[in-house]
Amino acid sequence: MNQDLRALMAPRSVAVVGATERAGASAGYVMRNLIGMGYAGQIFPVHPRETSVFGYKASPSISALDETPDCVVIGIGAAHVAGVLDEAGRRGTRAAVVLASGFGEVGEAGAALEAELTETARRHGMALCGPNCLGLVSLGNGAALYSSTLDPAIKRGRMALISASGASAIALGHSGRVGVSALVSIGNAPVTGLGDYLRWFAQDPETDVIGLVIEGIRNPASIASAMEAVHAAGKTALALRVGRSAEGQRATAAHTGALAGAAEAQAAFLARIGIVDLPDMDSFIEAGVLCSHGKRPRAGSVAVVGVSGGGVAHVTDIASEVGLHLATLAPDTVDRLRSLLPGFATPQNPLDVTGAAFADPGVYRGALDALDADPGVVMTIAAQDAPPGLSPDIAAEYAGIAGAVAGYGGETPVIAMSNLSAGVHADVAVAYGNATRLQGTRATLTAIARCQEADQHVTWHEAVMGGEPLDAAPGPISEAAARAIFEHIGLSGPIGEVATTADEAAALAERIGGKVAMKIASPDIAHKTEAGSVALGVEGADAAAATFNRIMASAAAYAPGARLDGVLVQEMVTGGVEVLLGLVQHAPFGLGLVVGAGGTLTELMQDAAFDLLPIDAERADAMIGRTRLAKLLAGMRGAPAADRQALVEAIVALSQFGERHGRSIEAVDLNPVAVLPDGQGVRLLDALILRD
Amino acid sequence: MNQDLRALMAPRSVAVVGATERAGASAGYVMRNLIGMGYAGQIFPVHPRETSVFGYKASPSISALDETPDCVVIGIGAAHVAGVLDEAGRRGTRAAVVLASGFGEVGEAGAALEAELTETARRHGMALCGPNCLGLVSLGNGAALYSSTLDPAIKRGRMALISASGASAIALGHSGRVGVSALVSIGNAPVTGLGDYLRWFAQDPETDVIGLVIEGIRNPASIASAMEAVHAAGKTALALRVGRSAEGQRATAAHTGALAGAAEAQAAFLARIGIVDLPDMDSFIEAGVLCSHGKRPRAGSVAVVGVSGGGVAHVTDIASEVGLHLATLAPDTVDRLRSLLPGFATPQNPLDVTGAAFADPGVYRGALDALDADPGVVMTIAAQDAPPGLSPDIAAEYAGIAGAVAGYGGETPVIAMSNLSAGVHADVAVAYGNATRLQGTRATLTAIARCQEADQHVTWHEAVMGGEPLDAAPGPISEAAARAIFEHIGLSGPIGEVATTADEAAALAERIGGKVAMKIASPDIAHKTEAGSVALGVEGADAAAATFNRIMASAAAYAPGARLDGVLVQEMVTGGVEVLLGLVQHAPFGLGLVVGAGGTLTELMQDAAFDLLPIDAERADAMIGRTRLAKLLAGMRGAPAADRQALVEAIVALSQFGERHGRSIEAVDLNPVAVLPDGQGVRLLDALILRD
Repeated sequence: MNQDLRALMAPRSVAVVGATERAGASAGYVMRNLIGMGYAGQIFPVHPRETSVFGYKASPSISALDETPDCVVIGIGAAHVAGVLDEAGRRGTRAAVVLASGFGEVGEAGAALEAELTETARRHGMALCGPNCLGLVSLGNGAALYSSTLDPAIKRGRMALISASGASAIALGHSGRVGVSALVSIGNAPVTGLGDYLRWFAQDPETDVIGLVIEGIRNPASIASAMEAVHAAGKTALALRVGRSAEGQRATAAHTGALAGAAEAQAAFLARIGIVDLPDMDSFIEAGVLCSHGKRPRAGSVAVVGVSGGGVAHVTDIASEVGLHLATLAPDTVDRLRSLLPGFATPQNPLDVTGAAFADPGVYRGALDALDADPGVVMTIAAQDAPPGLSPDIAAEYAGIAGAVAGYGGETPVIAMSNLSAGVHADVAVAYGNATRLQGTRATLTAIARCQEADQHVTWHEAVMGGEPLDAAPGPISEAAARAIFEHIGLSGPIGEVATTADEAAALAERIGGKVAMKIASPDIAHKTEAGSVALGVEGADAAAATFNRIMASAAAYAPGARLDGVLVQEMVTGGVEVLLGLVQHAPFGLGLVVGAGGTLTELMQDAAFDLLPIDAERADAMIGRTRLAKLLAGMRGAPAADRQALVEAIVALSQFGERHGRSIEAVDLNPVAVLPDGQGVRLLDALILRD
Repeated sequence: MNQDLRALMAPRSVAVVGATERAGASAGYVMRNLIGMGYAGQIFPVHPRETSVFGYKASPSISALDETPDCVVIGIGAAHVAGVLDEAGRRGTRAAVVLASGFGEVGEAGAALEAELTETARRHGMALCGPNCLGLVSLGNGAALYSSTLDPAIKRGRMALISASGASAIALGHSGRVGVSALVSIGNAPVTGLGDYLRWFAQDPETDVIGLVIEGIRNPASIASAMEAVHAAGKTALALRVGRSAEGQRATAAHTGALAGAAEAQAAFLARIGIVDLPDMDSFIEAGVLCSHGKRPRAGSVAVVGVSGGGVAHVTDIASEVGLHLATLAPDTVDRLRSLLPGFATPQNPLDVTGAAFADPGVYRGALDALDADPGVVMTIAAQDAPPGLSPDIAAEYAGIAGAVAGYGGETPVIAMSNLSAGVHADVAVAYGNATRLQGTRATLTAIARCQEADQHVTWHEAVMGGEPLDAAPGPISEAAARAIFEHIGLSGPIGEVATTADEAAALAERIGGKVAMKIASPDIAHKTEAGSVALGVEGADAAAATFNRIMASAAAYAPGARLDGVLVQEMVTGGVEVLLGLVQHAPFGLGLVVGAGGTLTELMQDAAFDLLPIDAERADAMIGRTRLAKLLAGMRGAPAADRQALVEAIVALSQFGERHGRSIEAVDLNPVAVLPDGQGVRLLDALILRD
């Protein structure tokens, strides 16, 4: 669905159903806002009894209007909404805002009303903001279809806010920090969703940054395709996910689920499509200011310049905590700074230009120029406190530095940052002119670091989730069947077979030779170690026969009634690094893949990388690099390096498997996969498939 | 040294050496500040050529003064400072402020000047602020011995700031958020240090909160004893450590050092003595506001109340990230809230009282009262946005809520919090009256959580670091000798002896029986696994003899020239959880102790707890609880529970060992210590002692 939101965001005429001058009525707020914000289009109040509302002639119904309105704002109770919407749709109205609550958010009766509303809007091809929302306002044209008080003096700028939470939209829209082009309270959004709004703002000439306050993601395909338009337009989308801690870990029999919950899946989705994921309101606001003033920061290392050793040391501390990388300066830069700065200053990054910059702002300017010329610096942060409580004469001392930042004309972006979120003295703010000026060390550096990460977006397509059935009998999948499936895609295990009697086990152990591993074969026992039904290093026929009997007894005691197919007797694989590979279904994104330390380390280390499918070799390698597993694979404490390349190939094969069978899989645990020494590949030692 | 800072912080008369009206001179700033801040004591300008400075009669020297000044501010170059200080000291002046730089911070010549200065001050028993500082100002008495511009309108309040960084003192002192009672720029502080200032402010009636900006800790004993006075006075000390990321990991042959660097040692020290450790300027400021208004928050669970579902969900997210615990409400509280709130609201924590509170602030008040009565709630956070950019008429809608918070009279502290660091609308701020009002979700919740942690302080004494020599021959300590030392304190290893020939190894293996572990015995090889000189599970005399030869050859190849005492042959300890215990020297705090996963997991997991000595059983158990080791010990995946009590005893024994020999030890690695199943104790499998 590729909706045209023109009639919603830039209507030529608006009917306001329920319009009244009575205080407290939501449609009354809409009337006041349209008038107060200087809406230039036509306004048609609709009310069964009023004849005139705020001086505008009122009509008793949509049908009774002389003209067809582009958009209708429906400010009446939930039960009556669908009828009015249908009336408007039949006249040819292209868009509606439904303010009332009492729909999908309040149980079954409300859900039925919402379904009716949705069907009506779809039937007429209407865009629909709400229900259960505050409405929206486009500041450029004054279309304030908005039911909370609005100030015409609201700080205007280049950021559109789209919020699942009405109160958050109010808070963020009125921070006084970031200027806004539009506010949208999306409500339940069964018709017009995040993707539709993103697509609108991608082409809106008044918007550079789109800020999303997200409580859940329902239509990832629409959002992903809209983001391609956002990127193509050179714009930036920011997200603040609220309620992410409530997204509990997924309860599942597979370990993979415990390692990657719904919040991780959302984060992986946003990262993949290049939406900047911010952890709190402050960093969201600072990212909005940052990207409103120019392009999104490029990935790379930054330089920090200040006039106080303590100040720049504080910046270094926080940069290291939020993962922002400080550049190592080029030798040329160091030489240039050395000749510029007083002898007692050290030409390094972060750079303390010392109090010399107060006496001569040319020193500060020179430092910015030197850093500009350094090819390893993608952005310079002028870390300068000049707090609001200074006296005007002290504040004046900072004007030279602020002027140097304001007048800087280099290629490398320079931003000014105050360590305090309380910001800078008003006089100093004026001296900064049009320079980008951010507040709060942690909020600012977090905003920059997260924006840089979003520089590496790709995209995501729903199509990757195929539904090809698994090549196995219906019902639960035994370990042996699961291993056969993976053998098919190149993930082989050790040689082995299932013995159904002690004698068979003895014969198998003899045939395989050396030490063997033995474990229960049962479709009903997922965690074999807990069931006491795994034995490693069994040597010789007699021991194998005895172990067979012990394992069968132990499994029967652990899970009475479980189907016991026998005991798998297989070649012992020793050495190598044990890894967990897994797939886990995370609606609405489809399958994600987990890589982490395997075997008994899985739960202990809680150190795994997660990404959504599809995963190619480059992403697979990057996932390994995000875990401490990388260190294990490189060969710790004298161990040989493991076959990382083979692990990358196994991840890619598992991703392709998931893409093919996606919709029929709930989770897959391959744990452990032994990654043998370099050149010797991987061995799948255990496999679990949970069907959807 | 227990200095009396009265003459420094509340002098009855001040001589200003170098006083002039010339712009830019530091002593001129001091004169202007003393006059501007209304200093009531006597002011004596001292200058070789001036006769009058700002209307005060000037004298050519300290000796030429009619009276002895309580305090002297020395605003002249480094080379001449000690002479003036001596002159003042001889007259009986009790305190001095030295502004000039050019001392310890600039190399050898400066260090010599600083040593002379220190000796002079000590000889005369003078308190000394600086050198290399901005000086200090006590706002109550106007003693502005301070060389940067000061605004008489600076926000006054109950927080004293003591800063190693002059610029940070300026920034934090003028944030406009927290009112200050005093600013101290301590400079190099060779005479009067953090502990002395803490002791002063502990008894200063104008100060409730003492904020420290720390670049390093030099005299922990003085600080620890001063903190006892701070706690006794019911006051709070806050710290912001700048430059902590530069405190690199300690390079040492022991694993323990890599697990706990200097920054961890500082943090452990602050935690132990109850100084609240804040991670950034914003949380430092908010903690200052919080503790200026009342007592430091008690440890325990908090309640959150708001009028927006999205808003309280955001608070929950950040609380979970910063480790602030939300209370589970008592059944009575739930009942009370249910009868108070509209039917669609859910009586839970965090509590969304819904928009009903706008219409009737009594609802909000009622919610605060209900939470007040809940025994599980130690503090209630009223999370309410009312951003600065609102129009006055919208802001007025929030006045009812702000009034409910302002008028709240319960026992449980209630604080108001805005999610935005940009704060609240000025009208709303007025409506909050004297209520404690914090800004920024992350800064606020971090401040509360860190304050709560400091509630559990104990203390620290230098005396715990004894210097009793180790019971071993001089020079490097062999593993066998190290193990003998620990056997002495109850940490026994498996049975075993060092074989010096292959035949001896064979005989030992036979005597011990079953499988044995074999490893090189050499004082020169710290990491035996890397040297290929460990063999596990060796069975039988022939295998032991062959392994002896292989290990000796391998060790000789790995470390040519190393002294090889033979091969240790010992009982194989299987099962149990492998733990690392270690000691590491962290000047100036003495030894710290590390507990973490052992064996090959040590480096991989990078998951260890650190604390300074002494460690009793309760702290030992808490340390285990801070690591994922706790999970391993409890018995993961069907493994039996391990003997945690025995591990606690081992930690306490190691702590006592460290207290006895502290000054002669550089580091100790006991890795691994096998913690056997419950009731079976621990076995020390490997030990390394590095002497200081």
